[in-house]
Order: sequence, then C-alpha cells, then structure tokens
Amino acid sequence: MKKVSVKDIAKLSGVSVATVSRVINNNGRFSEETRKKVLQVIEETGYEMNYSAKTLRTNKSYTIGILVPDISNYFFSDVVQKIEYILFERGYSTIICNTGRNEKKELDYLKVLQGKGVDGLIVISGAEEFSFDYTEAKKEIPYICIDREPKDKSQTTFISSNHYQGAFEATEHLIKVGCRHPIFAVLNRKSTSAKERLSGFKEALKKNHFTFDNSSILYLDNPPAEMKRQTQAFFNNYPTTDGILATNDAIALELLNILHNMQYKIPEQIKVIGFDDSPITNYSTPPLSSVQQDTAKIAETAANHLLYLMKHPNETGQTLIVPVTLKLRQSSAL
Amino acid sequence: MKKVSVKDIAKLSGVSVATVSRVINNNGRFSEETRKKVLQVIEETGYEMNYSAKTLRTNKSYTIGILVPDISNYFFSDVVQKIEYILFERGYSTIICNTGRNEKKELDYLKVLQGKGVDGLIVISGAEEFSFDYTEAKKEIPYICIDREPKDKSQTTFISSNHYQGAFEATEHLIKVGCRHPIFAVLNRKSTSAKERLSGFKEALKKNHFTFDNSSILYLDNPPAEMKRQTQAFFNNYPTTDGILATNDAIALELLNILHNMQYKIPEQIKVIGFDDSPITNYSTPPLSSVQQDTAKIAETAANHLLYLMKHPNETGQTLIVPVTLKLRQSSAL
Repeated sequence: MKKVSVKDIAKLSGVSVATVSRVINNNGRFSEETRKKVLQVIEETGYEMNYSAKTLRTNKSYTIGILVPDISNYFFSDVVQKIEYILFERGYSTIICNTGRNEKKELDYLKVLQGKGVDGLIVISGAEEFSFDYTEAKKEIPYICIDREPKDKSQTTFISSNHYQGAFEATEHLIKVGCRHPIFAVLNRKSTSAKERLSGFKEALKKNHFTFDNSSILYLDNPPAEMKRQTQAFFNNYPTTDGILATNDAIALELLNILHNMQYKIPEQIKVIGFDDSPITNYSTPPLSSVQQDTAKIAETAANHLLYLMKHPNETGQTLIVPVTLKLRQSSAL
Repeated sequence: MKKVSVKDIAKLSGVSVATVSRVINNNGRFSEETRKKVLQVIEETGYEMNYSAKTLRTNKSYTIGILVPDISNYFFSDVVQKIEYILFERGYSTIICNTGRNEKKELDYLKVLQGKGVDGLIVISGAEEFSFDYTEAKKEIPYICIDREPKDKSQTTFISSNHYQGAFEATEHLIKVGCRHPIFAVLNRKSTSAKERLSGFKEALKKNHFTFDNSSILYLDNPPAEMKRQTQAFFNNYPTTDGILATNDAIALELLNILHNMQYKIPEQIKVIGFDDSPITNYSTPPLSSVQQDTAKIAETAANHLLYLMKHPNETGQTLIVPVTLKLRQSSAL
C-alpha cells in the first residue's frame, strides 16, 4: 500500500496542507467541523505522521511576533492593530510584546518570541540599531524593521515613513507662513525616525538660508514638569522663537499647553506643527497641524513583506519608504 | 549515591528552583552568568533531568497572556503596560493579543495562548460574558477578568473599577451645577463597564427625582459622521438637554466637537463629563471633566491575584472593586 501523505489527507479532507498541519498539531486556527473531518480522514486512511508533517510541526506556528516600545503611543498602536488585522485574515495570529523602551526587556522578549516558535517578527521603532543574534536560536526567523534602523540591512526589510520629507515640508510651511526663527522640539532620547525628522528640518533651514545652531533645537525630557522648565528656559534664551516643529503630536500638545500658560498666542505669536496626525489633533486648542503617516500603507507593506520573506528567506535587503502628508490646521495658520 | 534533585542544583548554584528550570528549558529569563553557573553545577553533579524537572518543563513557561479588545484605547493600553511592568519584575513575560472586539478572534487567540503554554491569562473588557472552555486545553490556566463579567464567577477573580460609583457621582455633580436634563451617551455596543455606568447614572437620576426615559440616553455608533447625525437628531427631539455623561473620554471629546459645530457653548449651555481621565482631557476645548480609573491599582491587583491563583488554583471566586475619582475641569463648570 502506498504510504499516505499529508497532501493526500488535505485532498481527501478538502482543506489545505497548512490546515491539516494545524489540526495535527492542535496549533493555530480551524473550525471544529474541519478538525472532525481531518481526524476522520486520518483515521480512515491509517495515516501516520511522517517526516513531512513533523517538519511542518517544527517549522510553522502560524504566529507572528511584534516588538513595540510603547502601545500607548497612537502611531504604534495604530500600526500594530492594522498589521494584526491583515495577518489574521491570512491565517496568522499576532502576539505583541511591549518593551517599554528597555533594551534588556527587548532582548528578553526576543528570546521569549523565539521560544514560542514565531514564524516571523516585526520590530517597531527603538533608539538603537536593531540586531538579531541568532546564535541561540533554534531557527532563523525572518524579520521586518519599521522605523528602526537595522544594524545589518542585508538581513531584513526596512520600512519607514518618509520622515525626512515630512519634516522638510512642515518646516518650509512654517517659513512660508512667516516664521523667522523656527525650531525643532525633540526628546533627548532620539529614535531612528526622530533623527530623520531632524535632518529634514535642518535641510529646509539650509535651503531657505536660515542658520541652524543651538537656538534651533529644543531638547526635552519627560515628565511634563521637566518639559515646562526646559521650554521656559529655552524661550528666555531665545525669545524670538516663532515656529515649532515637534517630533510628535504628544510633544506638540504638551508645548501648546506650556506656551498657553506662558501667555503666548497660538498661532498668532508662535506656530506649531506636530507629527503623526493622531486623532487628538482635532481636539486641541487650537487644532494641531501635523504630518500624517500612512499607517494603513505601512501595515500592509510590513505584513506583505514579512509573509514574502517567510517564503523567500534570502530576499532581504530592501528599504521601503512610505510617503507622508502635511495636514494643516489652525495651529500653523497665517 | 543519592540522586541529585533540581533543588540541590538550585542550592549549589545559588539560584532559585525556578531559575534552574528556566536554564534547563532555555525558556524565560536568566543572565549568561547564571546559565554558565547552573550548567557547570549540573555537569559537576552528574544531574539528570528527572520527573520533577520534566513537570516544571511541562507546566511553567513564565509567560502570561493578555487578551485586550483595542490597544489604541488609553485605559486598556495603560492597564496592559502597567501589568506587563509588574509581571516582568516578578520574572514573567507578557504576550498581548488584540482581539479587535471580534468574538471569533478572541476564541482563536485563546487557543493560541493555550498553545503557547501561558501560565496565566488576563482578560480585559468585552461585550459578552467571558467563559473559558477547557475541554481542548492541555492544562487548566488560571485567569483574571478585568471589566469583563465572567460567565462563572467561581472560576476566576473579577476586577473592576467602581463604574457605578463613578457614574453616580458624575451625574450628581451635573445636577448640582444646575443641569435639569442630564443624559448618558453610550455606544450601542455596550461593555460590562458601560452597563455599570448606565446603572449608576439611572440611580443618581432616581435619587434626585429625575425621570429616566428615552430622552435620558443617547445611543451612538461609530464612525464619527454617524455619531454627528445621531447627536443632531437627539438634540432636535430633546432640545432641553443640558448635561452629558459620556461612557468614555473618546466619546465625550467627539461630542464636544459635534456640539461646538452645532453652536452650543460648553459649559455654559451644556456641561460634559467623560470617563477614564485620559491625558487628552487636558488638551480639549474646554478641558474635560472625567472619572479617573486607578489603573495602577487595577494593574497591581490583577498581577498579584493572577500570581496568587497560579499557586492556589482553587482560591477563585473573588470580586475586587477599585474606587474611582471624579476629576473636575472646565467642561462641567458652573
């Protein structure tokens, strides 16, 4: 008698090989009906799990891991949810690990995700270049970096908004509406994307013959009370400041509050633009101009490329840049 | 020669039994130094993994799963992050699954988390009563429900803010500052907590001799354009409405925008209070009064009780209610 293969089981059950594998391993998703059907066919054919099924068992968990620094950040949670949605439609479950911007924690969660046998990994943002140490791994896991410079670009697909373009356009807009001393407000802890935004800001100053020096950049730290102190000190030193591009909306909103308490009129005296175009921009006083990242496109690109890398593990090394859009509201109006 | 036990290895290595188990199984967290030390002791003593170590291997993954409907919601992401922080300090990794308020997805993720061998589970919010079907599970997993009514309270620990008290106090405040026709604004998709808030609202009306009827409750649906239509229709029918308790801050902020566009003055003509006290309440026009949930206390209670249940699986059946605080801002001022 010809040995029954997992393919035969799939054919006889009217489902895919992947589904048969999931039922055999009781891992991933299938209906109770499917389970019954597959188990019935297995029984009828006297199928015994062979090497091929064991390979499937070892190599496929239908689970994707996501490392994210801070799920309370709008941009991150939006991208993560959109990725999860797409992957689920394709039969993959997503498990999310929140690293709290802690390097040690990130390494630990990398180990955990490997231990759970994820088929692929998406790494979002972070301060340092990302490197994946495979020395203790049971298998190489394809991974995608979003807004996180990989140490070795040849090992991954790198996806990012065009932060440079966004900051450049926002800065040129500030200059166009009359700012003579625009500044860039950024956290001391700088991410890959913040660095790109800073260089877009610098380049726009340069193109418009403005000087970039200490008076062009306001460094901030959490908590808000510290930001307030730093902002007041900066405005004491550089009272001609009349435009701010903030590295994200949360910072921009905090600055709106601080400047309001310092009796500045926005946008009459100081114009402010944020980054991310989070929903909150519509509720602030005044509504906040912001650079919109295309989270749907980023999520779609990341999910598609990860699934592609899982099938073609050698096709790494790509960099994909997603365009951004400047959304103008009252905070930067003439 | 006496057989060496995992306890002996732990003693000789100067680490806990749990750490020895993690090293043996290469699962969870330990330093490179610890790993070397433990492996050296194992080699020196000629220790062979025995039944006890295998039990540890089968039963402990040092991973906790969290099911959450929507990580972009401030309350959820805040609680999840605080739980993760506490559990990590105790040596546990947390994996988060975002169910998108989709029942089928929730069931699938329950299976996935069981497949990954989590030691415990925290279920946050959701529309339906939560029940955990163990029939296909390899082991019983202790679980905690936060803001999610369990189908069988004897199987779990139930943790919740005192939504009833929060809504009651907020409603009494609206009445105290002069509202003669306060309403409750809620999504048609009602969670466990929204139901509690509604009953707090009703009870405050009753205590103050106000009638509760169709004119007391504004049902809303996403997206915002639909909310706008529903709100306009409601105010056409009930133009005397002069106070709103919204079921969460996101809804309250959307209503502030809609009412502003309808030319209402807040708080002069209509007073508004939200729920959750998310950071956004400080940035709205006007700043939003809100009922603050004690996310630190909720997270701490959930993490502690889950770890306790993992050691004492029969000590279920508790209900823990965490007090809330009404934070007053300009949106409900006299």
